[in-house]
Amino acid sequence: MGVPAEKGMATRARILDAAVRLASRDGLEGLTIGSLAEALAMSKSGLFAHFGSKDALQVATLEHAAELVRARAAGVAQAPPGPERLRRVLEVTLDWIDDPELPGGCPITGACIEFDDREGPVREALERLQRATHQRAAELFDAFRHPSRDRDLLAFQFRAIGLAYHHAARMLREPRARAWARSALESLIEQASRPV
Amino acid sequence: MGVPAEKGMATRARILDAAVRLASRDGLEGLTIGSLAEALAMSKSGLFAHFGSKDALQVATLEHAAELVRARAAGVAQAPPGPERLRRVLEVTLDWIDDPELPGGCPITGACIEFDDREGPVREALERLQRATHQRAAELFDAFRHPSRDRDLLAFQFRAIGLAYHHAARMLREPRARAWARSALESLIEQASRPV
Repeated sequence: MGVPAEKGMATRARILDAAVRLASRDGLEGLTIGSLAEALAMSKSGLFAHFGSKDALQVATLEHAAELVRARAAGVAQAPPGPERLRRVLEVTLDWIDDPELPGGCPITGACIEFDDREGPVREALERLQRATHQRAAELFDAFRHPSRDRDLLAFQFRAIGLAYHHAARMLREPRARAWARSALESLIEQASRPV
Repeated sequence: MGVPAEKGMATRARILDAAVRLASRDGLEGLTIGSLAEALAMSKSGLFAHFGSKDALQVATLEHAAELVRARAAGVAQAPPGPERLRRVLEVTLDWIDDPELPGGCPITGACIEFDDREGPVREALERLQRATHQRAAELFDAFRHPSRDRDLLAFQFRAIGLAYHHAARMLREPRARAWARSALESLIEQASRPV
């Protein structure tokens, strides 16, 4: 036993890898059971059996993308909490945004723009994932000497760097984008390290 | 004479106001001559006469949106160059992002996500508009005492605040979003004011 379940999981992961790429290129709204079936040369009925609806496919794709980012970030725990860990998380974020496997940039960032004004299960999943990302960013600032600082504000500023990098690197194709992002982080570290 | 031309301009502005709203709600890709004709109860052939193609309509819509932002920002020149002017520009930016006339947020920010990876006239127009916005942001830092600071980096950090506000206010529906954006600007002003 177990093998069929494992095989099912592997198939699901392979399907969702393709779905993440498709959502990056066409936007999450462009990801449908039909477009995914075509990309994978699978039957629509086979994909329906996996996901049941377009909404469920979109939510599963977002969760899979978030899982991929978390897996890449797993190694940052080797760095001591504080500035060094923040620098590592930033590099993981920038590498993710630059990943050639994501032809249209981070599919989660794209989905936020598409779905921020639409009620429903996709928006709910996105808000949950984005709140969790904010929370993890806030925790990265717990190691600083001045815990009276507003860590939610620091998390907002940290996330701002990733969003601005996405814009500068992908929209402006600005060669200095990574240098700017790193310098912005050093300023933020300095700010977080000073007494309030 | 002149009246027909003025009337034509007024009609064009009215059409483009509607196009900006539509692009905010549906994304710039969702803005077509057909969808706009429906929203305005105009004929598709009439709109074709104004714009000629979907690409040209999309470019005209982006330029109109940028023009609307610039018109709102015109008053900031009353504030002295430096921190006070920066604060005013930030407020104009946040008000624009919150505008109930933009049901899906800033159509230019949305278009950047949609078009950053697609070659063509729309991307070219966007990059030109975004480079101009970056340039204007960089000039806002000329008034600071330490011109040796990298004003392009400061412009990157300033624009990061707007992008993060768009995300926090619209996606997270975070009540503290405006307070965070204002605090982030104060930190940036402090950074720009200190010797390198």
